[in-house]
Amino acid sequence: MKKFMDKDFLLNSDCAGELFHTYAEDCPIYDYHNHLSTEDIAKRRVFKNMTELWLECDHYKWRGMRQCGVDEKYITGDAPDREKFLAWASVMPKLVGSPLYHWTHLELQRYFDYYEPLSEKNALEVWELGNERLKSYDAVSFLEHMNVKALCTTDDPADSLCWHKAIRDAGNVPFKVLPSFRPDKYIDLDAPDFRANAEKLGNEYGVEVKDLDSLKEALSKALDRFVECGVRVSDHGFSRFSYVRGTEKAELLHWLGCEYAKRGIAMQCHLGPIRNQSPRLLSSFGPDAGADSVGLTTDPYMLGAFLGDLEKDGALPKTVLYNLNPAENAVISTMAATFAPKAQYGAAWWFSDTLRGMERQIDELLETASLSASVGMLTDSRSFSSFARHEYYRRILCNKLGELVESGQYPADTEGLGKIVQDVCCNNAKNFFDL
Amino acid sequence: MKKFMDKDFLLNSDCAGELFHTYAEDCPIYDYHNHLSTEDIAKRRVFKNMTELWLECDHYKWRGMRQCGVDEKYITGDAPDREKFLAWASVMPKLVGSPLYHWTHLELQRYFDYYEPLSEKNALEVWELGNERLKSYDAVSFLEHMNVKALCTTDDPADSLCWHKAIRDAGNVPFKVLPSFRPDKYIDLDAPDFRANAEKLGNEYGVEVKDLDSLKEALSKALDRFVECGVRVSDHGFSRFSYVRGTEKAELLHWLGCEYAKRGIAMQCHLGPIRNQSPRLLSSFGPDAGADSVGLTTDPYMLGAFLGDLEKDGALPKTVLYNLNPAENAVISTMAATFAPKAQYGAAWWFSDTLRGMERQIDELLETASLSASVGMLTDSRSFSSFARHEYYRRILCNKLGELVESGQYPADTEGLGKIVQDVCCNNAKNFFDL
Amino acid sequence: MKKFMDKDFLLNSDCAGELFHTYAEDCPIYDYHNHLSTEDIAKRRVFKNMTELWLECDHYKWRGMRQCGVDEKYITGDAPDREKFLAWASVMPKLVGSPLYHWTHLELQRYFDYYEPLSEKNALEVWELGNERLKSYDAVSFLEHMNVKALCTTDDPADSLCWHKAIRDAGNVPFKVLPSFRPDKYIDLDAPDFRANAEKLGNEYGVEVKDLDSLKEALSKALDRFVECGVRVSDHGFSRFSYVRGTEKAELLHWLGCEYAKRGIAMQCHLGPIRNQSPRLLSSFGPDAGADSVGLTTDPYMLGAFLGDLEKDGALPKTVLYNLNPAENAVISTMAATFAPKAQYGAAWWFSDTLRGMERQIDELLETASLSASVGMLTDSRSFSSFARHEYYRRILCNKLGELVESGQYPADTEGLGKIVQDVCCNNAKNFFDL
Repeated sequence: MKKFMDKDFLLNSDCAGELFHTYAEDCPIYDYHNHLSTEDIAKRRVFKNMTELWLECDHYKWRGMRQCGVDEKYITGDAPDREKFLAWASVMPKLVGSPLYHWTHLELQRYFDYYEPLSEKNALEVWELGNERLKSYDAVSFLEHMNVKALCTTDDPADSLCWHKAIRDAGNVPFKVLPSFRPDKYIDLDAPDFRANAEKLGNEYGVEVKDLDSLKEALSKALDRFVECGVRVSDHGFSRFSYVRGTEKAELLHWLGCEYAKRGIAMQCHLGPIRNQSPRLLSSFGPDAGADSVGLTTDPYMLGAFLGDLEKDGALPKTVLYNLNPAENAVISTMAATFAPKAQYGAAWWFSDTLRGMERQIDELLETASLSASVGMLTDSRSFSSFARHEYYRRILCNKLGELVESGQYPADTEGLGKIVQDVCCNNAKNFFDL
Repeated sequence: MKKFMDKDFLLNSDCAGELFHTYAEDCPIYDYHNHLSTEDIAKRRVFKNMTELWLECDHYKWRGMRQCGVDEKYITGDAPDREKFLAWASVMPKLVGSPLYHWTHLELQRYFDYYEPLSEKNALEVWELGNERLKSYDAVSFLEHMNVKALCTTDDPADSLCWHKAIRDAGNVPFKVLPSFRPDKYIDLDAPDFRANAEKLGNEYGVEVKDLDSLKEALSKALDRFVECGVRVSDHGFSRFSYVRGTEKAELLHWLGCEYAKRGIAMQCHLGPIRNQSPRLLSSFGPDAGADSVGLTTDPYMLGAFLGDLEKDGALPKTVLYNLNPAENAVISTMAATFAPKAQYGAAWWFSDTLRGMERQIDELLETASLSASVGMLTDSRSFSSFARHEYYRRILCNKLGELVESGQYPADTEGLGKIVQDVCCNNAKNFFDL
Repeated sequence: MKKFMDKDFLLNSDCAGELFHTYAEDCPIYDYHNHLSTEDIAKRRVFKNMTELWLECDHYKWRGMRQCGVDEKYITGDAPDREKFLAWASVMPKLVGSPLYHWTHLELQRYFDYYEPLSEKNALEVWELGNERLKSYDAVSFLEHMNVKALCTTDDPADSLCWHKAIRDAGNVPFKVLPSFRPDKYIDLDAPDFRANAEKLGNEYGVEVKDLDSLKEALSKALDRFVECGVRVSDHGFSRFSYVRGTEKAELLHWLGCEYAKRGIAMQCHLGPIRNQSPRLLSSFGPDAGADSVGLTTDPYMLGAFLGDLEKDGALPKTVLYNLNPAENAVISTMAATFAPKAQYGAAWWFSDTLRGMERQIDELLETASLSASVGMLTDSRSFSSFARHEYYRRILCNKLGELVESGQYPADTEGLGKIVQDVCCNNAKNFFDL
């Protein structure tokens, strides 16, 4: 029996252990997609207590608590922070097998040097020692502690990027902080709030948005602003990806792809969630309450036509395809491989950002695309302590490769595999996104 | 090498063994969905021979025999019972890896104290000892033998529930026998036999069914009758789930959901089979001949809208979502989690009621919903000896949890896990369905 | 740690080893679907070097090279053969976990008695020893070496079958070489080149194709020609399977099914690829460049109606259903099982022709259809050295069954399992296709 989450957690062979400890563990982190607050970074926010750090805006944890029957008062309600933390600690043992269980304990170990399993029993002890320890961290040192070299946050095209500029001007953050261009609400022409959003965007850039051309003009100016702040990636979320040639939507997507290619911006496509499905939570709390589900699979003819049309025009930007529904892993992986090396099959995401989800994504890369060329992991998180997820991924990656060696499927070339591990953990992302 | 299906069958770690033998094995059974004959229960039917018990109406076994090339004469035809049993025993070794293989041997062990693998070689011996042993069982003692505490059978809204009443009135059945409300044929407004069915329902309740209102009236009276007999759950089978706001179909579904909520009846939705696909078997034998397949995945927007509309009206009943197509495990599990704790992700079903199917469902619960809150297993069976399937599930469940401990993913808290095991094996179902 | 790809490669238990070495290893091969060149067979082509053998037309390898960033010049371009081989050898270590990795080394071992892992380091050595050894092989001896007893190639209905006749007339090829009937381009009535193709077919058979009846006449004459050359199977590729009763397309498919049944020809349906998705590769190289992806899942209602209509008319031919998208494994497997024993669930194919893909297909057969009755593996390949893939499959098959014995899920009846192994490896295919 292995010890609980010790140094060889998830490393089930000697080779896996060697790959992780010699090659992966100390790799720097290039986190090319997350939702961190640049205001918190610029202001070097200090978290007052463990609830602020862990429960303030983490809809993953909220959802886990609801599954276990915790009253909403202790989730998004007005219970005191201390009681919220105790509620979280109490459900911990019930989250057996959940990524939340592993994330929480990796964070306790890496940031707080605490190695016991969290439960009702030690909840108060952890609350106190955690709060004490939090005084020694701020938003920047949380990331520095994990050897972060670059961050790509997620930003609204109408954003002034003032915090990005503040971070750059201060010059004292020891890693790159770059914006990502996320134009969803300006390109979903049929959304009820599209007009209001487009007007807001136009105002920001002094453009009267009245048709597709003026919309492009505003987006183009936004792109210029983002380029000035070092943008490397864009990000698109598609609940139902649609690309029908001849429609304005398709024209706009194609135009954006061309603009990205021209500016050397990579294009991320996140495919398939259904958001805010609970009317109860939407009305009482608002969006992003943790009431989302896995949606439909993507039409591969439409996705292929989108990428193919860009390729035909010599304007396929670097592209990362992320699917939420694991039933389309093979579709998206083979599609990315068809357009390789420009396209990449992205890491397991959201509801698939789990041990099995990551294993499935790695298996898919191994068998239908190319693991060696993969840009690896990202956090996609709004939590400053979530960067232990890179470690989680790296352990799974090393274990997969170790398994191939142990079972005689690959020669015991630890050095060669170590190089592949380092490429996947950091070099590929650094190079692909030019970070 | 482990011994063939011995006491540690499927239990691959010490922890798994301890969880099963200490916590799961003796748990009572709350079988909240099955197709047992209440007439057989009321009459305490005694099975004349092994063919009556095993092959009379088990389309799983028929299908297994057809796969192996057995002539229909020995399946649903007019061969003598003895020859049918010999045919079944002869194909047994060819069903390697099938759930039928494990079910059959679990039943031989638990009900007949017979521990050898069944094959052509010992077919006659088993036929004779089985028939002899059958004299000591009846429909009730088969269930009592497995520590059954409650049963929810599947009943037609037009049913008089006379056998349910007979069982209740006799007062000598040592477990609860409750009806389930299965209104499929009265709510599929487009089905060719809808009118005839609706008329039959109306006749039973003295209502002339001529429009949606009168249909609701008849269903409402049926619900009252079921409530009187202690109904706790309804059951819906959807080959293609459809919920388009503004249609009569959607209105009816919404109305039923509200009625269930009002009466504290849980709503089961079985999503995705295609039934009776072989014209040859349909014409020679009729429906439920074992010629069914896995169908389309469900539109998650429609399913989400159905549940969301009920929630918005404060009328979401307790709900269990079962999907047949394993490609939608993540969709259905995350949807259930979105509406938790009202909604549950149901056990692996029919073609997924297999070792891997159950593992996949448990993995999905662990990673995207909550295993600890799960209502666990049910038989969905028409066979009185099928309750060994609970044991099959429990072994798989305990093995999964044991694996997490053995691999250092969870602390060695056997007591805490034992509590979770007992909750999943019986307490959660008892409480959720109020059994 | 197991040694790299030694004699017990993928055989992880004693039982698996015994099953493979005693029962599977020496089984003859009935390769009932491949794309080998009959001209090469008739002319007993000798391959001048390893690049001719391995890289001339293998879009799997091309794709693997592109993933790893190799310049197209060394893939389908005009680089010298030696440099192309070196490029291939150099990417080999990066293809860790890929079927290409295992295929390549199985081929090196079986055909070239070379047991080291291929990489940049020994690329030249392998180039030289391989080229030397190639002098001792020709297209026929490559197959004889693997104990091939029968081949079904893939042929155009308008083909004169001259090479088939030449092989037959020469009478010196020590295995059967039979054509397969692949009518795709003559039955896709909406395809842009349908008319031109139909005219070509008509010309070959002296029929003016002007409507459905004359098209059937031409196809019927083609079938007669194929029957004369011993055809046993047809082959259909469906990117999007469509069967809508009342359409000409459906009528034609139904008619073909009837013709196959009448002539004892089995019908293979390959479901779900999207072909030639890269405009860049399509314009620079043409079709089959390795720019294909996994497509949509099949509508099971349409597929079921197609098979059911044939069954209703007593004209369901022997049928093998292959799906590309692993998300529909359960759909296709249960559909095949519904129409068993006429229908078979086909082997994992193309992007699923991988270790995990084969394991998934075998699991599906075990749990929802019947492994014992399966017709097993085929190469689907255009490479004369690819028949080591049968060995790859057989190892996986034996390992699966060995696992069931080792874990106590099946009795240690090696002899009985050995019989099943031999049936799946050769007897079932020989009997099903009458080879």
